[in-house]
Amino acid sequence: MLGAIEAGGTKFVLAVGPAPDRLVARHVIPTRAPAETLAEAAAWFAAQGGVSALGIGSFGPLELDRQSPKWGHITTTPKPGWADCDIAGFFAGVLGVPVGFDTDVNAAAIAEHAAARRPGGSLAYLTIGTGIGGGVVLEGRPVHGIAHPEIGHIYPRRHPQDANFAGICPHHGDCLEGLASGPAILARWGRPLSELPTDHPAHAIIADYIAQACYTLFATVAVGEVVIGGGVAQTPGLIERVAERARALDAGYLPGGKRHAVIRPRLDGDSGIVGAMMLAEAAART
Amino acid sequence: MLGAIEAGGTKFVLAVGPAPDRLVARHVIPTRAPAETLAEAAAWFAAQGGVSALGIGSFGPLELDRQSPKWGHITTTPKPGWADCDIAGFFAGVLGVPVGFDTDVNAAAIAEHAAARRPGGSLAYLTIGTGIGGGVVLEGRPVHGIAHPEIGHIYPRRHPQDANFAGICPHHGDCLEGLASGPAILARWGRPLSELPTDHPAHAIIADYIAQACYTLFATVAVGEVVIGGGVAQTPGLIERVAERARALDAGYLPGGKRHAVIRPRLDGDSGIVGAMMLAEAAART
Repeated sequence: MLGAIEAGGTKFVLAVGPAPDRLVARHVIPTRAPAETLAEAAAWFAAQGGVSALGIGSFGPLELDRQSPKWGHITTTPKPGWADCDIAGFFAGVLGVPVGFDTDVNAAAIAEHAAARRPGGSLAYLTIGTGIGGGVVLEGRPVHGIAHPEIGHIYPRRHPQDANFAGICPHHGDCLEGLASGPAILARWGRPLSELPTDHPAHAIIADYIAQACYTLFATVAVGEVVIGGGVAQTPGLIERVAERARALDAGYLPGGKRHAVIRPRLDGDSGIVGAMMLAEAAART
Repeated sequence: MLGAIEAGGTKFVLAVGPAPDRLVARHVIPTRAPAETLAEAAAWFAAQGGVSALGIGSFGPLELDRQSPKWGHITTTPKPGWADCDIAGFFAGVLGVPVGFDTDVNAAAIAEHAAARRPGGSLAYLTIGTGIGGGVVLEGRPVHGIAHPEIGHIYPRRHPQDANFAGICPHHGDCLEGLASGPAILARWGRPLSELPTDHPAHAIIADYIAQACYTLFATVAVGEVVIGGGVAQTPGLIERVAERARALDAGYLPGGKRHAVIRPRLDGDSGIVGAMMLAEAAART
């Protein structure tokens, strides 16, 4: 049996199953201090009869360099208690099994790539919610570079109808996350995007910022699809607006542009946990 | 003997040598219509005694999908006569040898990756000249995605002291190439950047646009280095300004940020032709 954890800032999703697409049990626990959260997760896996390998897709930033002594750690997060937490090492020790480890969004991108059934394909997964994050799969492989993608922190051009909002990112002010995340929407309009009238300018403004991220991914590394999940992305009509705006930004120029797509997750809300199962499967093979 | 072509819009650089870092002869011909340019190049290789494999790093856009019947073609370029030119097929036919084929900037990125002597490293190569292009190597592999990078066409934020220039890109107006290429600099200031006084605001404006591209590459795919070549990049002090501005945009946030670098090419002006030699070497092995 494979085990998987989708480790988020507010909840941990746990699952077990014989294969990534066959989850036979699932459990959600609230994220508290590391010691109690990790112990509760380990106890749940033990109660399922144990696992032969574990995959973890985690909030970050993470150390993913296998050569580093800090591999498997959450690194510099401002989340109290979690900085420098050796999450992969904890489970490797307590469960005694191989552990696969990547960002939550790379895990989701890996799962969406598999679900697309185009081996060797290239896509990005963006989550637009409490924060904005992105994972990238290029020619079938998750991208790490020298660390991992942090697409939420690129700087989109300011929308002309949104010139006076300073943005809420503590590091960058008006980066993508500072402008288009759920809390950024609440900060200037007082309600979630899905509760604003369909003729409210917020819809075009937020779609424009997300579309700029999509176009940037098409232009910089030529992904074919951008898959968009997360709470804000549930807003009716948003994905269609983003797709239309991204096409306008391209203006028919980019090679491969006819195959560009901006879509909802094929796995609905399961991209992250299925991706973590795939990390477990890969860890079991090594 | 390996052969290499760096195929540019104004000139073709041709070279032969027993290994990528050992060029024993080199020749430059002006780019004219495809038939005469390609025939002259083929004649030069024949005069060198022939080659066992050829690598081509070409201006684009290109078809790089090995499954496509159009593999090896320049596709939609506005350059008269060159659209739909089967450049790789021409040389495969006339020379009867294996041909490696990639963008000029991916070739340069491959060569700079090798010159950095960090196998599995991640970097981007930007050329800032008549146009702006970029190649990307991630974890040791050149990036193609579903086509190839076109980093010159991302949209940087407009600099506050450069608000009134519309940009010169025929597709996007004020994309990076439309704002920061050599012709864009000439269009609004009448002289190349290197001939403007050191206290002219153009230096900070152009550095800001290029720095946004660097930061975008750090944030989206976590390259460790951005190597910047091309005519505009020769301007004294520019690379240092770009590096400083890219650090300011990061604001200490990105994982791996301490290892970020913005640098001149290790191979000076030879990145492209050496990269094309490496494409030949790889083609000879397959």
